Amino acid sequence: MPFDRSAIAAAARRIAGDIRRTPQLAMPGWGVLKLEMLQLGGSFKPRGAFNRMRAAGAGDAGVIAASGGNHGVAVAAAAQSLGLRAEIFVPEIAAEAKRARIRSFGARLVVGGAGYDEARQASEARAAGTGALVVHAYDQPEVLAGQGTVALEWEEQAPELTHLLVAVGGGGLIGGIAAWHRASGVTLVAVEPEGCPALHEALAAGRPVPAPVGGLAADSLGARQVGGLMFPLAAELQAAGRLAPVLVTDGAIRNAQRALWENARLVAEPGGATALAALLSGAWTPPVGAKVGVLVCGANTDPASAA
Amino acid sequence: MPFDRSAIAAAARRIAGDIRRTPQLAMPGWGVLKLEMLQLGGSFKPRGAFNRMRAAGAGDAGVIAASGGNHGVAVAAAAQSLGLRAEIFVPEIAAEAKRARIRSFGARLVVGGAGYDEARQASEARAAGTGALVVHAYDQPEVLAGQGTVALEWEEQAPELTHLLVAVGGGGLIGGIAAWHRASGVTLVAVEPEGCPALHEALAAGRPVPAPVGGLAADSLGARQVGGLMFPLAAELQAAGRLAPVLVTDGAIRNAQRALWENARLVAEPGGATALAALLSGAWTPPVGAKVGVLVCGANTDPASAA
Repeated sequence: MPFDRSAIAAAARRIAGDIRRTPQLAMPGWGVLKLEMLQLGGSFKPRGAFNRMRAAGAGDAGVIAASGGNHGVAVAAAAQSLGLRAEIFVPEIAAEAKRARIRSFGARLVVGGAGYDEARQASEARAAGTGALVVHAYDQPEVLAGQGTVALEWEEQAPELTHLLVAVGGGGLIGGIAAWHRASGVTLVAVEPEGCPALHEALAAGRPVPAPVGGLAADSLGARQVGGLMFPLAAELQAAGRLAPVLVTDGAIRNAQRALWENARLVAEPGGATALAALLSGAWTPPVGAKVGVLVCGANTDPASAA
Repeated sequence: MPFDRSAIAAAARRIAGDIRRTPQLAMPGWGVLKLEMLQLGGSFKPRGAFNRMRAAGAGDAGVIAASGGNHGVAVAAAAQSLGLRAEIFVPEIAAEAKRARIRSFGARLVVGGAGYDEARQASEARAAGTGALVVHAYDQPEVLAGQGTVALEWEEQAPELTHLLVAVGGGGLIGGIAAWHRASGVTLVAVEPEGCPALHEALAAGRPVPAPVGGLAADSLGARQVGGLMFPLAAELQAAGRLAPVLVTDGAIRNAQRALWENARLVAEPGGATALAALLSGAWTPPVGAKVGVLVCGANTDPASAA
């Protein structure tokens, strides 16, 4: 199954009744913010989760996912909305607040394993036994096509934008956006925290490789390595001069969170503020004439941390 | 000077470069939220402040206002943006956080008097001496016309809406909105906290009368009485069956704040969540076929209070 422009357009039609069309806010000096953290479930993740569930179909065995973070919340929320059973596997390190939010959407929570990899392996073993539909956090075509719907929607809202700043974890979001913009003139600025440089290291190595996971945004951007599906597309756009990888410090991320609150009364989690951090810190500078868009992609955090 | 549809359209042109066009978010089951708390300065107030300053003109003596709350912040922000000197008079009860925010926009802060009335009197005495332009918190035609621009903008964004829920303090916001919708088919739901029933009591008495000021939203909705300019318009719309006054409890306001955070990752101050509280608490029930809009009008609060 492809995740090209046509698949993304099909995904957008498929999930139109499930997700929110998130608004924009033009901020002089910053650019156009797309407020995707106002999405159902507090992040962009339900786009991919709904598309995977609706496109692949799920029977009485329901769906299964591994994630202690936004993906787990999104799969739980999407399953509840579609009337499906959901089992979410989270590692022992998953925060109690995230566990409670997953449970609040009616999902069965299974805690086990020291980290994400162990939880994922346990979830896949369970799925093999039950026949539940596995919804991967980033490396499935339907998930990539679902996340790509944010690019289609944003293009409808702001066709003038020339540069889009997007945070990168496992690469599902920017992979979907890259698929939509593969043949457009838009440049993607792929922003990672210094503590989670999975795309940076993959581009340097020429293939997805294991990378460190740490720092302020690790709970949402801390994938061990980027997905195999998104990587060739990222490398292709970089070779074409239309993907700029940028690293930002935790301090820049914290400042961007504060700036969003001070200037626009918006709350973003660290991963949600990472794209803006590249702009505000000067880690990335817009070329003359650029029309800049910034995706604010998640807000599943204690709101007290915004100020 | 009138504050009719034509004056509001002129105001919208006058302040178009000063303010933000705030976005909407459609929330199934609730209606369409207009996210006016994302406005410059964290509330709708700069619309009126900019319009007053630009329409009436302000010389070297600058501008002056009395408010320890959103109006003071808005006048300070607008003055800074226009390169004008600003003096903001606040009563001794004004919270340090609000004082700091007013100072952060470069205004001179003058603290004095036990309450808002004393601060206002001191500001008017000062203005008489300096020749500074007084920007009233709600009872000036240019201020009403400026606040009315939110209704013009909202009508462009969502012409289908039949019922608009709006919080009421001194009545500047709903007065401007009523002026815009005077001859339309739209019904206004005017929501006040039980602790600040200034419009409720004015409508009962047939004229603005002093009313209690208290409760959770008093810092933004706690006007002693509604403005003399807005009152005849509110009474006219009520007589025509197109203005429904509603009271909500502090508990309903607190629940609406929490619901905004839980369901949409939005922060609102108590006064900003008051309109939604009428809907979520059942204090107001939409008639069959109603297309409901809810104005979320302020977010100048500790974000920790959202959760």
